[in-house]
Amino acid sequence: MNEKIKQALIDIVGAKNYTDDLIDMVSYSYDGSQHKHRPTCAVWPETSQHVSEVLVLANVEKIPVVPRGAGTGLSGMAIPVKGGIVLDLSHMNAILKISIEDRLAVVQPGVVYADLEKVLLPHGFFFPPDPASGTVATLGGNVATNAGGLKGAKYGTTRDYVLGLQVVLPDGRIMRTGSKAMKSVSGYDLTRLFVGSEGTLGVVTEITLKINPKPTATSTALATFNNLDDAGQAISQIMYSGIIPSALEILGRHTILAINQNTDLNLPEVDAMLLVETDGYTQQETDYQIQKVIEVFAKNNPREIKQAQTEEEAQELWIARKSAYGVLARIKTHFVLEDVTVPMANISNLLKGVEAIAEKHNLQIASYGHAGDGNLHPQILYDGYDPDEVQRVETACADLFQLAIDLEGTLTGEHGIGLSKASYMTLEHDPVAMDVMRTIKKGFDPNNILNPGKMALEG
Amino acid sequence: MNEKIKQALIDIVGAKNYTDDLIDMVSYSYDGSQHKHRPTCAVWPETSQHVSEVLVLANVEKIPVVPRGAGTGLSGMAIPVKGGIVLDLSHMNAILKISIEDRLAVVQPGVVYADLEKVLLPHGFFFPPDPASGTVATLGGNVATNAGGLKGAKYGTTRDYVLGLQVVLPDGRIMRTGSKAMKSVSGYDLTRLFVGSEGTLGVVTEITLKINPKPTATSTALATFNNLDDAGQAISQIMYSGIIPSALEILGRHTILAINQNTDLNLPEVDAMLLVETDGYTQQETDYQIQKVIEVFAKNNPREIKQAQTEEEAQELWIARKSAYGVLARIKTHFVLEDVTVPMANISNLLKGVEAIAEKHNLQIASYGHAGDGNLHPQILYDGYDPDEVQRVETACADLFQLAIDLEGTLTGEHGIGLSKASYMTLEHDPVAMDVMRTIKKGFDPNNILNPGKMALEG
Repeated sequence: MNEKIKQALIDIVGAKNYTDDLIDMVSYSYDGSQHKHRPTCAVWPETSQHVSEVLVLANVEKIPVVPRGAGTGLSGMAIPVKGGIVLDLSHMNAILKISIEDRLAVVQPGVVYADLEKVLLPHGFFFPPDPASGTVATLGGNVATNAGGLKGAKYGTTRDYVLGLQVVLPDGRIMRTGSKAMKSVSGYDLTRLFVGSEGTLGVVTEITLKINPKPTATSTALATFNNLDDAGQAISQIMYSGIIPSALEILGRHTILAINQNTDLNLPEVDAMLLVETDGYTQQETDYQIQKVIEVFAKNNPREIKQAQTEEEAQELWIARKSAYGVLARIKTHFVLEDVTVPMANISNLLKGVEAIAEKHNLQIASYGHAGDGNLHPQILYDGYDPDEVQRVETACADLFQLAIDLEGTLTGEHGIGLSKASYMTLEHDPVAMDVMRTIKKGFDPNNILNPGKMALEG
Repeated sequence: MNEKIKQALIDIVGAKNYTDDLIDMVSYSYDGSQHKHRPTCAVWPETSQHVSEVLVLANVEKIPVVPRGAGTGLSGMAIPVKGGIVLDLSHMNAILKISIEDRLAVVQPGVVYADLEKVLLPHGFFFPPDPASGTVATLGGNVATNAGGLKGAKYGTTRDYVLGLQVVLPDGRIMRTGSKAMKSVSGYDLTRLFVGSEGTLGVVTEITLKINPKPTATSTALATFNNLDDAGQAISQIMYSGIIPSALEILGRHTILAINQNTDLNLPEVDAMLLVETDGYTQQETDYQIQKVIEVFAKNNPREIKQAQTEEEAQELWIARKSAYGVLARIKTHFVLEDVTVPMANISNLLKGVEAIAEKHNLQIASYGHAGDGNLHPQILYDGYDPDEVQRVETACADLFQLAIDLEGTLTGEHGIGLSKASYMTLEHDPVAMDVMRTIKKGFDPNNILNPGKMALEG
């Protein structure tokens, strides 16, 4: 960064909130994806006013600005691929207000998901999206990526809980969107235009979230199936049974094998395992629902059905699912965690297609995911130092995205487009929709300073 | 309409789908609001292609186009205030697909809400927003206005259920937004930008909706309170009790009096009545929840608490609430039905403020609404042939909107801005947000042909 701009940034945020040290620049060159690129400097703004002044400067000087939370994103949206300034919002981490009677929380973007959970728990409330990275990820990142998680089938994603925002626009103007009221139809829904926009339209500096009372009862059951068609039938029939599980997870054969090789869980080595949780306020309610699920399991040639009789047994059933990511991540030097999503009835076809892609490209792909909302996470394991294997992973990803679109699905259910899927946007979106997105981007950010290079917005 | 354009429209939609008959023009000059203005002609498109060709023509000739469903909107969004073409979408009324296993319905915009309900019911499913006008209102109108209803506290509004759209843009281009998958974070959320945009950005020609399994059990209870503070305390404490009622309705004193004067219900003539429904799959679950509510009632000096013991008794408790609108509508020659919305803890202050406004302007205002999401419907009854009273209603509305904003609320929870509240947009939205909305409108519709004069987008 040239000295004049460096000094201007220091004048805005203070010397302690500015860095261009090599070690910091290397740290900011990564996120949870396989991409990397160093920024020129990073700043830690402490107020919306800091954010505004940094953006005014960057907009005049046409310097890229990449907003960043905890950097847990899996699609490279926090990578400063064009260099410039990383705007690390982690110091803006105050919980500004909890109002149980109004069913809302007001937070700064740097608040970690789990820290909000801790504050809500004594009130019997929670913020439902529950991303797997919740112990580290920030709420600003949740909003920027529209984060989802295990409970999406019943509770939806971050988008469904954002009531209002304070946003700093690329030209430094500060605005409020939405309302503290539970619902509003006053003007365009600017709030949800920012949710999932991956830091390309503005920088979120305050978030008003709807919160929910936490269910007080759960029931949990698991079934294994010798073949995918039976598991697919079971998923469809659960949807027909008239209940929405709070979680409906699927693990494929290669995930099960990997878990068995790396733990003492001794799962049956079958094609698919389904794990279901139902929730409510009374045990009668959750048992009623889980019985519906077990009836469906029983009709579809299960190898085995297990119902947890205690909270401890339920936790044991969840261990396999929750260990999948970590166990698989250790198998090879590198991995890509995908998250294609299809209408629920197509999930077994998606799983079969993934297996065919693995075979075609001679790759190890283990699948698991949220069958309850059609979101599969194929985890592609590979040796990142083998150029041929890296190439095969890229081709396999392209095949996977085409498969998801062929099955009437989407490139990404919860990880976002970022860098990883930018070049596939046109597979999913027609030329008119692409043009509309680019027109919106240009309207907000004519100098293209905010998180450039993401989401194919420059095409 | 000049002959050349008339002929061009007939060439597009066919002679049977074009009208400029006086009786039709008078019909299309009204909607559910107090506004009126005649269009020049109306067309009934039968396909997206028809819509596209009409818009291409109108865009070249710079003729206003007002999309219209059943015309039940209460804020004048379907009034052709600048004349031009009414695009009546009621003939595009096919239910294209119901897929229970994928939890979705695909419909054309002219499908009436209740007709979708009828098709879903045998499957045990429903589309939760449940607007009060559901027997008449179309789903296209629900989407354009982000319709809500009695069950908003637990189930949200239309926005929460729209997965994807087909939209015709003002220049005639046709695009798809969203996905058939339950969740997607692929690109900007164009879908929700159209939801609630009141026909100012594009014409929706196909809607993909998320549907829910219908709860199979309910419990219902009612309490009356001698003063508003007690009722307000009860509402707040219900939120703290850890449950979300499927309905939590409030009726104010003047509504209760009017119901008593016009029916045989003999309600106690108190300051406030709260009516609560809980839902679930088992009676144990709904009773557990209603007991929590009754405990709260009991702690707040109720005059009376009633719990329905049978479905018939529950229906009886609901009669008072459901008769309010009709009973009040008959009292004077005209009425305005407002729908300001505030954070829940402020609803009793809102009710008190409404009473003060009624007194100040010597008007009859009866209030009721959805306390569970802070949405109050003050129904202002007046003689529309008395210019002085009309003027006082306008001033009272201005006071009401200011009150809602002062109580951290919004101008409209579910009726929309349309014409009625266009001039109050700047009370709620800061100049930056207003500018952003106008920039979006200009980007989509540079010639301002789509539903001009609404939402203060031309300011």
